Amino acid sequence: IPLSRTIRCICIETSTQSVNLRSVEKLEIIPASQSCPRVEIIATMKKNGEKRCLNPESKAIKNLLKAVRKERSKRSS
Amino acid sequence: IPLSRTIRCICIETSTQSVNLRSVEKLEIIPASQSCPRVEIIATMKKNGEKRCLNPESKAIKNLLKAVRKERSKRSS
Repeated sequence: IPLSRTIRCICIETSTQSVNLRSVEKLEIIPASQSCPRVEIIATMKKNGEKRCLNPESKAIKNLLKAVRKERSKRSS
Repeated sequence: IPLSRTIRCICIETSTQSVNLRSVEKLEIIPASQSCPRVEIIATMKKNGEKRCLNPESKAIKNLLKAVRKERSKRSS
């Protein structure tokens, strides 16, 4: 019998709002684990340090990770 | 005339060693900015909290982000 576990997700709700990479100071990706059964993606905004939980399923995140890749190739050329 | 800027990158050198998503507690992506001209990707390891700088160009990172996506679709099904 599995013991009941305390669920400690950081995000209570996620935003599907799109986020511009230029306004992001840091992007944290926390893989699913025993303490939280889902991937969590947290963007810290440059402007006010606000932390915003993003929906990993959203287009916003797909675009953001694409922007990271693009920026990378731009910088390395 | 631009003022000279202090470069404050977090990573001095990056590892191209592959990293298993299961052993990662947190993945931080810091976009290029005025303080550091390159994208920085920092993995915090579960085992000892060690922080490891990963090379954004490396296969390891590509695989890691792929694993995040896979995990996500697994969880949502």
